[in-house]
Amino acid sequence: MTQLLRVQNFVVTSDGFGAGKGQSLEHPFGNADPGQLMSWAGATASWPNRTDPGGTRGLDDYFTRDFKNNIGAEIMGANKFSPFRGPWENYDWQGWWGDEPPFHTPVFVMTHHLRPSFSLSDTTFHFTDADPASVLEEAKKAAEGKDVRLGGGGTTIREFLDADLVDTLHIVVAPVAIGTGVRFWNSPDDLADRFHHEAVPSPSGVTHHLFWK
Amino acid sequence: MTQLLRVQNFVVTSDGFGAGKGQSLEHPFGNADPGQLMSWAGATASWPNRTDPGGTRGLDDYFTRDFKNNIGAEIMGANKFSPFRGPWENYDWQGWWGDEPPFHTPVFVMTHHLRPSFSLSDTTFHFTDADPASVLEEAKKAAEGKDVRLGGGGTTIREFLDADLVDTLHIVVAPVAIGTGVRFWNSPDDLADRFHHEAVPSPSGVTHHLFWK
Repeated sequence: MTQLLRVQNFVVTSDGFGAGKGQSLEHPFGNADPGQLMSWAGATASWPNRTDPGGTRGLDDYFTRDFKNNIGAEIMGANKFSPFRGPWENYDWQGWWGDEPPFHTPVFVMTHHLRPSFSLSDTTFHFTDADPASVLEEAKKAAEGKDVRLGGGGTTIREFLDADLVDTLHIVVAPVAIGTGVRFWNSPDDLADRFHHEAVPSPSGVTHHLFWK
Repeated sequence: MTQLLRVQNFVVTSDGFGAGKGQSLEHPFGNADPGQLMSWAGATASWPNRTDPGGTRGLDDYFTRDFKNNIGAEIMGANKFSPFRGPWENYDWQGWWGDEPPFHTPVFVMTHHLRPSFSLSDTTFHFTDADPASVLEEAKKAAEGKDVRLGGGGTTIREFLDADLVDTLHIVVAPVAIGTGVRFWNSPDDLADRFHHEAVPSPSGVTHHLFWK
């Protein structure tokens, strides 16, 4: 069974930004409003942070519940893990996700500022300054036959795309423009020469872009 | 956790038939061509009968791989299980699916002609002449907290709809007309008064209809 490297549920603004500018502890997405960008998933029955019963079970729910389907490890960039730059002053920061992170697998954080691994519930965070191909090899080993999720942010996804290591991408274009931020692409056509591509509009207003080799 | 009764990947012709006329051992779908009706799923990477590597990983693949997602049991009608009518002369017939049926769970076959349960690989077939509500109760128990798939055929799905026991439906309308057969609906609007509804056209030519309460 081939192990894939999959980008899943990565949201891009309608003007092509994968993150806002000015990330901070108070504004994890910078000038982008995460509520606006993620409302398509938050409305579904499968949204992991749902506190009330109910939620939609249409197209967006399929993508939301596929997030964990056959995933055995995640790779993420340093800026997805924390708002801090530079060396760690201490190890108090344990991510944005509280005591029960939504990953439930080993997670490999790519950073030049290493620190010891630690676990929260059934998620274990490892820190590595290796190159993308080596990190992927390590993550596949940890995934024990399952696929590896490439969690973002956009800069990390671009690095793995440049190294031609990505097998499939699910990119969600939200109907929100932010004017400035970290550019992910000019348009979905940027990937059209290397991947098959389907664009699937959802009744919620987002468009799901699916890419595969 | 609520256990749902889910219809998944049930294919209907563009003129509203859930099965052809004249089912037989040689023609399990009667005058309907199963190759034409199922080609949307057969082309995907997740198709369980795939013998070559490859396959598409677009929208249709999400629906194909969701077939087993959180499913702990299946309920099916007698005509899905076999082409024979009336009492069993012997128990040689063990379904259409060979030694490795694609269900991998307990399966409850609704029939007036009972016979002993039997297992093939990790699928166990049980036979019951109980009413839909009782069969559902038994299937939920067997599913151990997971959802129950309502596998069809169309007549069986209509019975459970009439008893208001169905939570979600994924119906695939294939771009194929057969003129005559077992009618499933006049149009998707037939269910619009009781369910939320999304219609999602796929690049493959089929339209995925999603219904939920």
